[in-house]
Amino acid sequence: MKIAYLGPEKTFTEKVTKDLFPKDELVPITPIRNVVHSVEAGEVDFGVVPLENFYNGEVRETIDSLAECKSIGIIQEVKMTIVHCFGALENHGEIKKILSKDQALEQCSKYLTSEYPSVQTISTTSTAEAARIIARDKLKDAAAIAPQNALEEAGLKVLNCNLCPNNRTRFVVLSKKPTKSTGDDKTLVVIHPEVDKPGILHGFLKVFAKLKINLEYIQSRPDGKKGYCFYIEFEGHKDDKIIKKALDKVKKFLDSENKYKETIKILGSYPNTHWKK
Amino acid sequence: MKIAYLGPEKTFTEKVTKDLFPKDELVPITPIRNVVHSVEAGEVDFGVVPLENFYNGEVRETIDSLAECKSIGIIQEVKMTIVHCFGALENHGEIKKILSKDQALEQCSKYLTSEYPSVQTISTTSTAEAARIIARDKLKDAAAIAPQNALEEAGLKVLNCNLCPNNRTRFVVLSKKPTKSTGDDKTLVVIHPEVDKPGILHGFLKVFAKLKINLEYIQSRPDGKKGYCFYIEFEGHKDDKIIKKALDKVKKFLDSENKYKETIKILGSYPNTHWKK
Repeated sequence: MKIAYLGPEKTFTEKVTKDLFPKDELVPITPIRNVVHSVEAGEVDFGVVPLENFYNGEVRETIDSLAECKSIGIIQEVKMTIVHCFGALENHGEIKKILSKDQALEQCSKYLTSEYPSVQTISTTSTAEAARIIARDKLKDAAAIAPQNALEEAGLKVLNCNLCPNNRTRFVVLSKKPTKSTGDDKTLVVIHPEVDKPGILHGFLKVFAKLKINLEYIQSRPDGKKGYCFYIEFEGHKDDKIIKKALDKVKKFLDSENKYKETIKILGSYPNTHWKK
Repeated sequence: MKIAYLGPEKTFTEKVTKDLFPKDELVPITPIRNVVHSVEAGEVDFGVVPLENFYNGEVRETIDSLAECKSIGIIQEVKMTIVHCFGALENHGEIKKILSKDQALEQCSKYLTSEYPSVQTISTTSTAEAARIIARDKLKDAAAIAPQNALEEAGLKVLNCNLCPNNRTRFVVLSKKPTKSTGDDKTLVVIHPEVDKPGILHGFLKVFAKLKINLEYIQSRPDGKKGYCFYIEFEGHKDDKIIKKALDKVKKFLDSENKYKETIKILGSYPNTHWKK
């Protein structure tokens, strides 16, 4: 089989994809939207992209490009613990600069500001590049944040690997072939009401609350016109009787005349890995 | 006065800060958490940081580091329209690579994948650096995404400036001195229930719905333990009678025995600029 994943190579996404599909042909593609579209176009069998990081939040490009598609959905979620380490030259002096990729600097911000309150952070193209720059330019006053093996490959000394507790990324596998209910699933939907008025969110959450459906995630965002979209993830599979009932009630509440086909769009149902724990 | 802003210099944050404080001493600081802490410590009078981008979503480091503080809050929000342009060498050939900073690549992803579906995207340290690399290495098969002036300064030809409609970033000004109610304000709070059960979100949104308080923004996220935090922005000022009543009711619903001081934390009340429109 052919599997597309968010490139470039040697990233956490590649590692997750290799673990999931050890014997298949892997194709690194950028950006995220092209990975999603290649699954939709049937050019590959599966796609693997990040959906959310504990510190950086949700990846909107993943959610948005999924919502643009007609025939694919999320079929699996995979959690990966992300361990960043702090490294410098063996004979380093006082650390005045810290180099890494933006996302990693953000993930480790609390550590950095408490341990190195007055240093400057410098954004690099990748975490591995941060390590290479320090080694190449023999920067004694700089440290890099990168995975342990990237620091070691560059010849840097690993000083600390406990920079950001709870750091994990949730990746998702995309496919044209939907899953079946397992009894412990989750479903991600986009709800896009055609009107904006106070209490609308409360109105449809009432449906979930009454049916005792547990919400896992909620996010509102402006739709670029006058209204809002809501991304909601809840426990249950789209084929479960109770979920069908809930979505039907929400649809009736928001679109009583059944005028808007896309009021609720299901982005996928997949086994619940309880990734946050 | 002394104003801290998220550095480095020559970024959109610096531009916003200069517009707001044209005659004051501006201090670029990295990362975001250090800007926030410098206001909390009284080292500067105000701080300016990004809170949310239309495409990239909320900036969790801003919200998280604000929530860690005791004596400061948001006192103003400022919208800035972000226009990215597409540029290449005058004598460019077929474009096979597109260089820019991650956030800009993500913001322009829809344009890139529809106009250049098979190109490779390459992450650079800054948007200006993307333009400089193409000029320096005479890359005829590459284009950069950057502000128009950065493309022009590097000597590139500007091909298109309509890459991402609605693209805007919301910045916030932080201070120790809270605002007064103007009659058209918003308030951002973090709600951190001590228990997690189905329907809890619905339970406290009911309070807002009943009092006809319009929600502007909602986001849930795991707290790294067993529960969730909710970030909620709504219309009204924390000193408005109806808002006091709402927050009091929510607190009683979530913490009926008044055991948890931090169940609701107000991150600021500020005039509503209706930034999304």
